[in-house]
Amino acid sequence: MAAERVPDATVSRLVTYLRVLESLERRGVMRTSSEQLAEEAQVTAFQVRKDLAYFGSYGTRGVGYSVPLLKRELRNILGLSRRWKLAIVGMGRLGQALADYPGLGEVFEPVGFFDVDPAKVGKRLARGVIEPLANLERAVAERGIEIGFITVPAEAAQEVADRLVRSGIKGILNFAPAVLETPPHVPVENVDFLAGLARLTYFVSRNVGEEWVG
Amino acid sequence: MAAERVPDATVSRLVTYLRVLESLERRGVMRTSSEQLAEEAQVTAFQVRKDLAYFGSYGTRGVGYSVPLLKRELRNILGLSRRWKLAIVGMGRLGQALADYPGLGEVFEPVGFFDVDPAKVGKRLARGVIEPLANLERAVAERGIEIGFITVPAEAAQEVADRLVRSGIKGILNFAPAVLETPPHVPVENVDFLAGLARLTYFVSRNVGEEWVG
Repeated sequence: MAAERVPDATVSRLVTYLRVLESLERRGVMRTSSEQLAEEAQVTAFQVRKDLAYFGSYGTRGVGYSVPLLKRELRNILGLSRRWKLAIVGMGRLGQALADYPGLGEVFEPVGFFDVDPAKVGKRLARGVIEPLANLERAVAERGIEIGFITVPAEAAQEVADRLVRSGIKGILNFAPAVLETPPHVPVENVDFLAGLARLTYFVSRNVGEEWVG
Repeated sequence: MAAERVPDATVSRLVTYLRVLESLERRGVMRTSSEQLAEEAQVTAFQVRKDLAYFGSYGTRGVGYSVPLLKRELRNILGLSRRWKLAIVGMGRLGQALADYPGLGEVFEPVGFFDVDPAKVGKRLARGVIEPLANLERAVAERGIEIGFITVPAEAAQEVADRLVRSGIKGILNFAPAVLETPPHVPVENVDFLAGLARLTYFVSRNVGEEWVG
C-alpha cells in the first residue's frame, strides 16, 4: 500500500469511520453506504470514498459496504489487527487507570509500569507491578515493548520521551500537556484533554458572543 | 473579534502555542519570536504569524513577543480567563480521576458528578458527592453548569449527550469512543485516546513497513 501520500486528516477520519462501523454493528446494521458513513461521521460521502480509495477498492456500487468486512479492513490499515506491547511511564491516577483500562482490549497489552516515586514502586496492579524508572530501558528491549504511554507531569515529559527513544521505542502516546520532540522515526500522538477542553471553551465563548450580538 | 473565519486547525494550534509559552515560562524565558514559537510548536513561523493575525496584532517587529503577555492573550482568546462550571457524567475510574484532576486548576470547577450505578451514588469525592443521573437536568440549570464531560461507556454516550443538550449545556467534552450528534449550538470535542493510539499504530506500522523495504 502506498501510504506516504495519505494526509494525517484522512488517518483521523479512518478512526472515526471505524467508530461509526462499531456503532452500526452494535445496532445490528450489517450493510452500509458511503452516504450513511458520511452522515454519521459528519463529513461528505465524497470524502469517505476519497479517504477509503487511498487504501484500495472497498464496497460495491449500488450495494455499499459490508460493515464487518470494512471494519476488519480499517483495523488492518490502522495496525489494530495485531498485538502491541506497551510501557506506561508515570503511575499516578491516570497511569493506573490506563493500566487497567478494559478498552485496551486484546490489541494493546501493557507489560511495563514505571514511576520515579519509591512509594509507588512495588505496588501490584491487575496486570503487573510498578517498577522503578531505572528498569525502563532494559524492559523495553527485553519485553518487546513498542509503544510508550507518557503519563508524567508536563515538566518531566521530554526527559521520559528521550529515554523511551533511546531505549528503542517505536511510538509514543503522550498524555502530558507538553509538546514533545522526538526523531522522525518515533511518531508521537498527543492526548491532551485540556487542549480539547480549551478548544471547547473557545467555541462556546464564540457561541455565547453570538448570542449577545444577536 | 471576527471569529467565524478562524479555521479549526488554527484553534488547535493556538492551544499548542499556549503549551509552548507555558513551557518557555517554566524555563524562565520571558521574550520569544514567531521563529522560536514555530520551532517548538513544529510549524512554520509564517503559520504562527498568520494564526495570531486572526485575533489582532501581537508582538513588535524585531522585538518579538512578551511571553506572559502573549500567554494571557491566548488564554483570553481560548476562553480560559474566566471560570467554567462542569458536570461529569459517568463516575468510573476515568470520571473519578477527572473529578480530582489538579490540572483543571482555577478555570474549571466540577460541581456535579453523576452516575446511574446505585453503588456509586452517595460516594464522597474531594469536590462533592456522586449523584443519581436523575438529578442531571436540574443541576445543570440550578448550578450554572455550562460544560459536560461524558465519561460513560460508548453505548450510553449519545443518550447522555441528548440529556445534556436538553438541560441547556453549552458544550460537551466527550471521552467515550463514540461519535456524538448534537445541535450546532452545542459543540463537542472528543478526547478519544484510543483514536490517538490507533493513529499511532498506523504511523508505526508504516515505519515498520519502510524498514522492511529499506
